[in-house]
Amino acid sequence: MMKTIKTQVAIIGAGPSGLLLGQLLHKQGIQNIIVERVTGDYVLGRIRAGILEQGFADLVREAGVSENMDKFGDVHEGFEIAVGDERIRINMAGLTGGKTVVCYGQVDITKDLMDARAEAGLETLYEVESTELHDVDSETPSVTFIQNGEPVTIKCDYIAGCDGFHGVSRQTIPETLRTEHERVYPFGWLGLLSDTPPVSPELIYCKTPRGFALASMRSETRSRYYLQVPLTDKVEDWSDDKFWTELKKRLPADAASKLVTGPSIEKSIAPLRSFVCEPMQYGNLFLVGDAAHIVPPTGAKGLNLAASDVATLYKILTKVYETGDKRYLQQYSEIALRRVWHGERFSWWMSNMLHDYGNVQVGDMTKETFTRFMESELSYYTGTEEGRKVIAQQYVGLPYEELSDY
Amino acid sequence: MMKTIKTQVAIIGAGPSGLLLGQLLHKQGIQNIIVERVTGDYVLGRIRAGILEQGFADLVREAGVSENMDKFGDVHEGFEIAVGDERIRINMAGLTGGKTVVCYGQVDITKDLMDARAEAGLETLYEVESTELHDVDSETPSVTFIQNGEPVTIKCDYIAGCDGFHGVSRQTIPETLRTEHERVYPFGWLGLLSDTPPVSPELIYCKTPRGFALASMRSETRSRYYLQVPLTDKVEDWSDDKFWTELKKRLPADAASKLVTGPSIEKSIAPLRSFVCEPMQYGNLFLVGDAAHIVPPTGAKGLNLAASDVATLYKILTKVYETGDKRYLQQYSEIALRRVWHGERFSWWMSNMLHDYGNVQVGDMTKETFTRFMESELSYYTGTEEGRKVIAQQYVGLPYEELSDY
Repeated sequence: MMKTIKTQVAIIGAGPSGLLLGQLLHKQGIQNIIVERVTGDYVLGRIRAGILEQGFADLVREAGVSENMDKFGDVHEGFEIAVGDERIRINMAGLTGGKTVVCYGQVDITKDLMDARAEAGLETLYEVESTELHDVDSETPSVTFIQNGEPVTIKCDYIAGCDGFHGVSRQTIPETLRTEHERVYPFGWLGLLSDTPPVSPELIYCKTPRGFALASMRSETRSRYYLQVPLTDKVEDWSDDKFWTELKKRLPADAASKLVTGPSIEKSIAPLRSFVCEPMQYGNLFLVGDAAHIVPPTGAKGLNLAASDVATLYKILTKVYETGDKRYLQQYSEIALRRVWHGERFSWWMSNMLHDYGNVQVGDMTKETFTRFMESELSYYTGTEEGRKVIAQQYVGLPYEELSDY
Repeated sequence: MMKTIKTQVAIIGAGPSGLLLGQLLHKQGIQNIIVERVTGDYVLGRIRAGILEQGFADLVREAGVSENMDKFGDVHEGFEIAVGDERIRINMAGLTGGKTVVCYGQVDITKDLMDARAEAGLETLYEVESTELHDVDSETPSVTFIQNGEPVTIKCDYIAGCDGFHGVSRQTIPETLRTEHERVYPFGWLGLLSDTPPVSPELIYCKTPRGFALASMRSETRSRYYLQVPLTDKVEDWSDDKFWTELKKRLPADAASKLVTGPSIEKSIAPLRSFVCEPMQYGNLFLVGDAAHIVPPTGAKGLNLAASDVATLYKILTKVYETGDKRYLQQYSEIALRRVWHGERFSWWMSNMLHDYGNVQVGDMTKETFTRFMESELSYYTGTEEGRKVIAQQYVGLPYEELSDY
């Protein structure tokens, strides 16, 4: 016999977006259930970014889950762009009238949200299989899946698709009704996590003739480094030794001299992709975060764009349940996409400026011509106060959209 | 018998770059002769841009030829970008601490420079044929040509190649020693000149779904308008009526309502091209302006980049003849190219943001994806104070390079 559950909002996916949305809705008295394909431990095993925009941090505070973030997160007032051995500091706080970002791992924020959800006694169904969304273009959408061999149906008012790029939510929108924008980059990022003190207290984005590198961190004792590598490279091609040797060559000299090496805890290669699905909604299904859009990691916008989607959907649903005002529901996609495209553009731009395109033709230009344009771009934007403000303003995050503007 | 002339600097081309360089060198007591393939009237028949950066205007003043420009030129403190019917003013003066541009036709500045050259009794040889540059990588370069059926040789110390994209100067640099960067755009500009009052006292750059348009002017009674057209269009396809009808559809509504039409004085189609030759020198030959680089007209940088080349070469040659200090000669290309690439990038960027790419794939993205990126770009840069400053600072012109920085 089929088990049936009723709720107001069904959330597909228990990553940080789904958990944050669930917590925020719960604070407003809006019932929600989260279903997740894998286990909680598996979700926590995904190593991801750790730079939170102020808007995201404020949202976590609004959800009442900021205790650890505020205690252990590290406020960054700037970051560096290095061109060879020349280091240029982008003084974010100074250039934006005091705005900053918080360095706090995605894994940690996810754990905090999980704990808070458990403490509030809210339901998350893990390891569900064969999830399907039904009647999303009607007033009575539902979600079906198998849990422990048993078929389950969730009847709900709205579905939030927080199930990532490979999830079922986006695929539920008929192909004829969505446009998928994509750009693939001719290189990947090889990441290495190690329990060594970071080479610098702030991130360093390094442009070098050998390719891009990023010196990043999770804490004062845990470093996260990245190297641009060809898409044909495999993790097995990169011993720890080889990684550290190459990294040292790409860091600016005075940073390289401070590099502390050690065994890797994790090492993986990720491709770079720009992807946007338009629209981000269909009937009463709303896509959030990676389910609708992917950015290359340059500029740390991925999780932050998911958070602004959460903020928008949360504000709209709060209006619906508090006052019955449904007029913004059909504008969710329009409102969310505006900021999404700004983040997509910023990530694309930063990626173009900082990477080496090797010997491939870039779009309608030779690699050499594209390189000259990007050298000029980087020199102008890092070399003028006006340019640095543009970088800083977008790095700390553009303001969230206000419903009242629509 | 061959006629031989001796001078210090031989200038190839009597367009505004060659004339301005000649005048500036003359002011420093440096002898120069200009040779030109066509007649002076033909040079004056070329309709070109009319927006002079402050640096250019100052250089014209330094050359002592600014009387008419200062009297008849119109100082512009801003310009507009229109997206459909929405008009956004870029307050150049306000955003750059008081910098402005001067609207004064290239034909007029050329005429002023010609008159000043004649008055100073300086030699310009018009209608010379079969010009060739010799021994430019030696201490004794020379220029040969035929004038009135008679072969002539100019022996000189240095040659300034101011003879444009199709001139002989760039071709004199061995192919193996130069790199030519190029990007061709999939559309052209159809320009129309008419003796009608301009639709607005400031330029309006119009982005519309029908394609780009520019409302520009030469004076209070003479307008210059442009329409983006497919490269396959011919001038004959565009009657004056058809032009005005289409322009009216692309101007923002409140500007269109003020449009005064009239018969065209000139109408022509120009392709858009980004082009840079590296290096800009070979031995004692120095390329200036269009001989080394072309920009699409969006942003009015063509003549202004030529002027900054003139400023750089003039400063270097002045040092050579005044103090015997030749150390900057070999750095001309490096110094000039830095600013050239900034102008190339700005023109490429403005062109990308404002034009419609029709149904062609743009580089490695579909037209739709590229369009979304550019819509986001335009919305960010026109919608924030930080972004408008970046537009304004580059539109009024980045500072000229100082030799002391090299």
